[in-house]
Amino acid sequence: MIARRTAGRVQPIYAGIDGGGTRCRALLADARGVELGAGSAGPANPFQDPRQAAVSVVEAVEAALSDAGCAPSEIGNVVACVGLAGANVKSAYERMVDWDHPFCDMQLTTDVEIACLGAHGGLDGGVVVVGTGSSGCALVDGEWHYLGGYGFPFADKGSGAWFGLEAIRAVLLDFDELGPPTALRGALREETGFGPLELVDFMSGARPARFASIAPLVVDAAGSGDAVAAGILQDGSAYLSDLVVRLVAFGAPAVALVGGLSRKLLPWLGEDAAARVVPAQKSAEHGALLSAMHSGEAQTRERGAGDS
Amino acid sequence: MIARRTAGRVQPIYAGIDGGGTRCRALLADARGVELGAGSAGPANPFQDPRQAAVSVVEAVEAALSDAGCAPSEIGNVVACVGLAGANVKSAYERMVDWDHPFCDMQLTTDVEIACLGAHGGLDGGVVVVGTGSSGCALVDGEWHYLGGYGFPFADKGSGAWFGLEAIRAVLLDFDELGPPTALRGALREETGFGPLELVDFMSGARPARFASIAPLVVDAAGSGDAVAAGILQDGSAYLSDLVVRLVAFGAPAVALVGGLSRKLLPWLGEDAAARVVPAQKSAEHGALLSAMHSGEAQTRERGAGDS
Repeated sequence: MIARRTAGRVQPIYAGIDGGGTRCRALLADARGVELGAGSAGPANPFQDPRQAAVSVVEAVEAALSDAGCAPSEIGNVVACVGLAGANVKSAYERMVDWDHPFCDMQLTTDVEIACLGAHGGLDGGVVVVGTGSSGCALVDGEWHYLGGYGFPFADKGSGAWFGLEAIRAVLLDFDELGPPTALRGALREETGFGPLELVDFMSGARPARFASIAPLVVDAAGSGDAVAAGILQDGSAYLSDLVVRLVAFGAPAVALVGGLSRKLLPWLGEDAAARVVPAQKSAEHGALLSAMHSGEAQTRERGAGDS
Repeated sequence: MIARRTAGRVQPIYAGIDGGGTRCRALLADARGVELGAGSAGPANPFQDPRQAAVSVVEAVEAALSDAGCAPSEIGNVVACVGLAGANVKSAYERMVDWDHPFCDMQLTTDVEIACLGAHGGLDGGVVVVGTGSSGCALVDGEWHYLGGYGFPFADKGSGAWFGLEAIRAVLLDFDELGPPTALRGALREETGFGPLELVDFMSGARPARFASIAPLVVDAAGSGDAVAAGILQDGSAYLSDLVVRLVAFGAPAVALVGGLSRKLLPWLGEDAAARVVPAQKSAEHGALLSAMHSGEAQTRERGAGDS
C-alpha cells in the first residue's frame, strides 16, 4: 500500500455502491479502508430503468463525497464497485457496463454478490436476500454460486412482491367465493381504501415495489391467525429455506438472511435452514467497498509489475 | 318489425362485435336477423390499449360493411353491441364508453357476456371463457353473475397466460435444481431458442398474449407424461372446474367452455364440472348481434310509444 503513495500520483477514493429498486447507497473509504463518508439517492435497478440507475449511482457517490468533505471533481478519482439489483439479467448488465461513468474505474456486479461479501467480510459464505425480490448466492473457494433472482413475476418466490401478488390473488378468490375467506381482504381495503375490483385497477402495471408494499399486511395477518395469510407465508418461506439449504450444499459454511423482509421471515424458516443462518457482519455497500479495494490492489500490483 | 319500415327512415344495420387481446370480429345483420357480412381487425382490449381498441372495432365493422357490399358511409346507420375483453375493469370501461364512436348507437359490454349470449342463444346459461385470460359469467332470470376475469397476473388462473407463467416458473426451479426436472425446459428451449436466463430477459414486460403462446407446450408436455406440466394443468383446470360448478350454483342450467384453449382443457375438467358442460350454440359476435338487435327493438318500441 505504501508503495502507492508515489510522488505526484493522486490517491484514489474507494466507493462501495449498493443499488436497489427503491434506493442506492454509497460508502467511501481511503486506501487503508478508513471510511470517509456515506450518501444515498433514488432507485438503481438497471433492469427496470438503466438511465435512472446511472443517475442514482452518481448522485449517491456525489452525496458521499460531500459527506466526506471532498470536492465534486474528486469523482474522477473514485474506484467504484457497483452492485445492482437486476444486473444479473444479461441485457441490463450490458446496458450498465457500457455506461460512460464518471469514475476512475468501475466494477459492475449484483446486489446479491456484494451483500454476500459484506455479510461474511469477503470470506466464504452464502446470503439469501429477501426484500422486494428474492435470490441467493454463495462464495465458496473463490467460486460464485447463484440461485433465483430472475425477477417478478417469473420467480422471486418468498419476496415482498410475491407476497403482495399472492395476497391480491387470495383476496380475489375470497371475493368470488372460490377460495376461503381471509382477513387480507379487510386489511387491504383498510390500507388502500380499495375494494377488490378497484385494487386490480390500481395495481395494473404496478412495479414490484408496489406489490411489495402489501407484504407486511400478509405477515401481520398470519401473525393474527389468518389461515390464508399463514399459508402464503409458509409457501414463500419454504422456498427461502430451500435456498439456504442449497447454498449450504454448495459448501457455504453459513448463510445470512438479509433485506427488508429478512427479520420478519426468519421465524418462518424451516429447522434445517434456520440452523445454518447467521447474522450479516456488515452491509452490502461494505461488501462492495471490499471488492473495490480488492480490485484497486490488483490494479496496483499489475501496474507495479509493469513499471518494474 | 314491419312498423319500422316507415317512409324516408333509413333502416339500421345491426353489428355484433367481439374484441379480444389479439383480434376483433364484427358480424352484421339486418332487422330480420339476416346476416349481411363479417369482418375482422387487430386487437381490441381497452385495458391494454383503449386507442387501439377503438381503431380495431371501427376497422372490423368497416371490413364487415365492405363484405356486405355496403358503402363505408353506412357506418353511421350501424347499431352496435361491442363486447370487449378488459371492459370489466372500471377505468377501461369508462374510457371506451365515452369514446366518440361513428355508429348510430353503441352498447358496450364484456367479451364474456356476449360469449354467454351466443352460447345459449340469449337464454339462461353460463360460460367459462379460457383463452389468453380466464373468466366466467352466467345469465339467470335476467340477472348477470360474474366470476374472475380480473386480469393477469392477479387472477386468470387456468388461462393461457397463467399456464405460460407457471411453465416459466417451473423451468427456472428446475434450472436451479430447486424443483423437479421437467420436459418443459427442453420444450421451451426448442420453441424459443432460449435457455432459462435468456427466456426471462425475453419475457420481461411481455403482454399476456406472449405468455399464452407457451400454453400449448404445457398441454403437450402433460400429454407426454411430464409430471410437472400435468400438475400445472390439473391446478389450472381445477380452478376452471370451480368456475363451472359455481355458475351452476347461481342457477345456470348448463355452462359452455369457450375460447382458444377450451378444447384442449375439456378433458382436464373435474367430473362435476364436465357433467354440466355443453357446446356453445353460436359465437360471441353472434351473441353481441343478439344484444344489438334487442336494444334496437327496445328503442323502436320506445320511439313508437312516443310517436303515438
